[in-house]
Amino acid sequence: MVEISRRRAIEDVASDLFRERGYAATSIRDIARAMSLQGASLYAHVASKEDVLWAIVDRAAGRFEVAADGAERDAETRRPGDPAEALGALTRAHVDVLTSDVDAAGVFVHEWRSLDPGHRDAILSRRDAYQARFQRRIEDGIAVGAFAMTDPAIATSTLLSAINGIAAWYDPNGRLPANRIADHLVELSLRMVANP
Amino acid sequence: MVEISRRRAIEDVASDLFRERGYAATSIRDIARAMSLQGASLYAHVASKEDVLWAIVDRAAGRFEVAADGAERDAETRRPGDPAEALGALTRAHVDVLTSDVDAAGVFVHEWRSLDPGHRDAILSRRDAYQARFQRRIEDGIAVGAFAMTDPAIATSTLLSAINGIAAWYDPNGRLPANRIADHLVELSLRMVANP
Repeated sequence: MVEISRRRAIEDVASDLFRERGYAATSIRDIARAMSLQGASLYAHVASKEDVLWAIVDRAAGRFEVAADGAERDAETRRPGDPAEALGALTRAHVDVLTSDVDAAGVFVHEWRSLDPGHRDAILSRRDAYQARFQRRIEDGIAVGAFAMTDPAIATSTLLSAINGIAAWYDPNGRLPANRIADHLVELSLRMVANP
Repeated sequence: MVEISRRRAIEDVASDLFRERGYAATSIRDIARAMSLQGASLYAHVASKEDVLWAIVDRAAGRFEVAADGAERDAETRRPGDPAEALGALTRAHVDVLTSDVDAAGVFVHEWRSLDPGHRDAILSRRDAYQARFQRRIEDGIAVGAFAMTDPAIATSTLLSAINGIAAWYDPNGRLPANRIADHLVELSLRMVANP
């Protein structure tokens, strides 16, 4: 239990540093220093800097996936087969995951490229599957005339880029609370694909 | 003249490497190797790695600014005082700059944070002024009822994040030509702010 929380503390400090300075510019020594530890003693808990990055990215990916599962289930209960309801719920879930731990989510969004090839490939497949959930809803919405005719792949990438932009500026102590930001992003996203 | 083009060649190679691997993970030696030069001989042309980054970012910023000037002028000639015309023109100009040199524009979008403090502050001011052009058009559109009531600052950040997403996936040899991508992005961006 102590080991688990020490490991988790390392990941939290690393998320903060990776988001602020970037993964490549942060060393294991920097992480240790931010925790008032010796670099060598950090290696009792982590195998490498990439091991820490992978843990952060893997956990963030899991949180996005679980949130999207719940969002799709809830949307289906509220308004079965309604593409706008489902896309809105997916968007809100994505914003919620981003704002609830913006350091880790920001590392996921910006630093997955820095993973070792095996991990990068694993994350790429999961990103593709995750993105496909959004694209499916956009395609459904186009098919039933709820959304405008458009290129679904471009609309999906554009929508996810739009939401992920939050990772660059969100501040928990900022002007707007997370749930208001989510309201705005859901509104902007749905209007983006809406059939005018 | 020879010196100017050698310097420019260094920046092009560096843009490519910075976009692919990231600025922090690329060394002057990597840039030299990609040009079949010795690291030391590169220092005849550039003062430091940051000097190269600054040159790339400064030039890209200038291209965005010049394109936006032209876009606003042309929109004003075509449809004076029309916020949708102006915002569409700014969006198209931004996409055009991104796709015409996606390596340099991608470095501008993703790596400006790696600049030294003085350069970073200078670019931040120019980014703010550039972003304000988009926000002004969104505010104008809301004021005249052409755009939906929304938070103009969030709409502006979201719109620019949506467009900048292109830098992550655009491939000059990809499925769609740059001008079709621009058409899609203008359409998605204008719908995002439109008054339904």
